[in-house]
Amino acid sequence: MSRSPGRKQENYKISRELFVLTYGALVAQLCKDYEKDEDVNACLDRMGYSIGIRLVDDFLARSAVKKCRSYSETADVIAQVAFKMYLGVTPSVSCSSAAGNEFSLILDKNPLVDFVEELPAERASLCYCNLLCGVIRGALEMVHLAAEVSFLQDRLKGDAVTEIGITFLRKPEDRKHRR
Amino acid sequence: MSRSPGRKQENYKISRELFVLTYGALVAQLCKDYEKDEDVNACLDRMGYSIGIRLVDDFLARSAVKKCRSYSETADVIAQVAFKMYLGVTPSVSCSSAAGNEFSLILDKNPLVDFVEELPAERASLCYCNLLCGVIRGALEMVHLAAEVSFLQDRLKGDAVTEIGITFLRKPEDRKHRR
Repeated sequence: MSRSPGRKQENYKISRELFVLTYGALVAQLCKDYEKDEDVNACLDRMGYSIGIRLVDDFLARSAVKKCRSYSETADVIAQVAFKMYLGVTPSVSCSSAAGNEFSLILDKNPLVDFVEELPAERASLCYCNLLCGVIRGALEMVHLAAEVSFLQDRLKGDAVTEIGITFLRKPEDRKHRR
Repeated sequence: MSRSPGRKQENYKISRELFVLTYGALVAQLCKDYEKDEDVNACLDRMGYSIGIRLVDDFLARSAVKKCRSYSETADVIAQVAFKMYLGVTPSVSCSSAAGNEFSLILDKNPLVDFVEELPAERASLCYCNLLCGVIRGALEMVHLAAEVSFLQDRLKGDAVTEIGITFLRKPEDRKHRR
């Protein structure tokens, strides 16, 4: 199931609901496959990673975004261009470390959980949208940015907002010093 | 994971690529879970059915489509309104039986297989997009139309086009006669 090399860049949009319900079917299937929430979360992250490393080409081609010069700019592009393009929402961004390498994407509403009211009691540790973390991690890796990405808050778990934390692991400056 | 009763009808669109890749992850997971293609196909159909019975509310609310007066009109609405809304493409429709209850939706291109070149040799019987058949079947059932829905041709299997067959199982007239 490899990518077709002759695929044209087509920019047409679809309605979100079918995607949201299909994603729900995927999570439900993984919950059947794995007893532990941690295993479901890890699997969603791995799947997302595989998606991210392929999606980044599409993103760069269609967004025409130039090379970012700082972590802050990168975080802004993820929130304002990528989230808008692929999920139709724009999270707000805040920098959460003095070192300038930790950022939070804050989603007032999470489009992936439109049809989900709450997690079942026996799935309290499930990171329902963990695929997104994997997608971001995979896409960043393809532009040579190592990062840890995880959910810090989740409205599905009763938090006031949904918050995705991105920690960039190495600064370009660090690498230069090492050489 | 029940549907939120207070969900607002929002009509914003998303880019298709994330959906297509997520669908690919779902099919790949089912191929891990089930050895036989037939079991993967059946599972995709079941999942699609569950999606269809939920999606139909969204469809009726947003499309403002009125009650169809014939199978032919129903097939046209599926192709021209539903496919356009959810997948961004419009299949052509042809009636394939004298009885007027069998229709084909012909897709010159299938948006769900954008990133798929061909099926692996060991998965020759896989109906990669079988979820769609289930979605159509489920949605039709919710408007009291029993139907069989299946892929008749598939470009992934070397056919010239992708063709979904819909056979409506009972005519309203039949029911009236029976009563």
